[in-house]
Amino acid sequence: MPQTPHTERHFTSSDSVRDIVIGMSDGLTVPFALAAGLSGAVNSSSIIVTAGLAEVAAGAIAMGLGGYLAARTDVEHFFSERAREERETDEMPEEEAAEVAGVLRTYGLEGDQITSVVNSIRADKKRWVDFMMRFELGLEEPDPKRASRSAFTIAVSYIAGGLVPLSPYFFFHSVHGALIGSIVVTLAALWVFGYIKGRFTTARPFRSAWQTVVVGGLAATAAFIIAKAIG
Amino acid sequence: MPQTPHTERHFTSSDSVRDIVIGMSDGLTVPFALAAGLSGAVNSSSIIVTAGLAEVAAGAIAMGLGGYLAARTDVEHFFSERAREERETDEMPEEEAAEVAGVLRTYGLEGDQITSVVNSIRADKKRWVDFMMRFELGLEEPDPKRASRSAFTIAVSYIAGGLVPLSPYFFFHSVHGALIGSIVVTLAALWVFGYIKGRFTTARPFRSAWQTVVVGGLAATAAFIIAKAIG
Repeated sequence: MPQTPHTERHFTSSDSVRDIVIGMSDGLTVPFALAAGLSGAVNSSSIIVTAGLAEVAAGAIAMGLGGYLAARTDVEHFFSERAREERETDEMPEEEAAEVAGVLRTYGLEGDQITSVVNSIRADKKRWVDFMMRFELGLEEPDPKRASRSAFTIAVSYIAGGLVPLSPYFFFHSVHGALIGSIVVTLAALWVFGYIKGRFTTARPFRSAWQTVVVGGLAATAAFIIAKAIG
Repeated sequence: MPQTPHTERHFTSSDSVRDIVIGMSDGLTVPFALAAGLSGAVNSSSIIVTAGLAEVAAGAIAMGLGGYLAARTDVEHFFSERAREERETDEMPEEEAAEVAGVLRTYGLEGDQITSVVNSIRADKKRWVDFMMRFELGLEEPDPKRASRSAFTIAVSYIAGGLVPLSPYFFFHSVHGALIGSIVVTLAALWVFGYIKGRFTTARPFRSAWQTVVVGGLAATAAFIIAKAIG
């Protein structure tokens, strides 16, 4: 890929940012909603803290290992597709060359020009396969070291997010007081998180901030209503 | 993109399959781990059912809306990058043309051939921008209708998954009996789910089945130990 200076202005959110967003958005939301829901049904901060911490541990492990396995699967999928393309360029080179020609035609190349470019590309098998991976399948080679870093980032972000809504339940004996405290700190944290996330991924950080607050608020309200109805 | 018959043998997991996997793997794991954790700390199936259903409601909404917003962000990110590329082809056409030439060079094209292909590509601005989106940024146009379908699929899969580990707590008065029942049905469901997921995404479905069981089992064990330590 060409690395000319002006391309740096493009922002493509890095994998780590994505992992932090994945972990923290669920970490802030689900334990908050669970604690709020239980506040409508039980009368003991300690049960809520127990349930909340159990959820944070479970969520961090489930999401972290889930992220690990997903990243491993991406790597395997990439290499199995690559092996298949390599086989195809050996076994049915004319069909694969015709596919290259078809791709070039969609970008406005014609006749002799296509023949000449196809011949250049197929002259080197590695490049030929690279071209097919990118164009036919739209796949980029994943970083094989990403899996464990991804798992760790997601899990830590989930725990950091999850401790925010639970913290008032450590300090307030009254469930009602803790619930109010949890709503205040969590909605504030969701707003800040949504704003920062929006700065990284969209041109409209304020909208992202409010959307994140609404998601967390709706999830907590639904959990509260359901727990109140049963409890 | 060329659609020759033999390309159909490639498997690229569809977006819906991915959404079902996202929702169901968390839905089977987190409520299972939460219920197991609480079983180590409280002595009432009804508190566990309340907490479990609150978690399922919260998780389904948080993940569903999270998926909705992520899909919307993908669409916006694509179009904002596309607008930027369009501006760049207007404002700094020679730099952008040089980038196209750089890409072609990596596929083995040379000299006059590059000039001729660059001229063909830049002759049509839409194609030129298409080429930059695909090659420089590796972005494909997302389906704008995907967001709401994705939200619904994730939420329903989360609920379907989450009801499996909770179901024994509806029927057993003894928390201990319910926990055993929950472990049995959930590990079995995780195995089947992991196997089916593996059939879709890798060449090794049995390994996928056991991996999924291990993730769920570890998350539940951690939640159990933490809840037991606090409760």
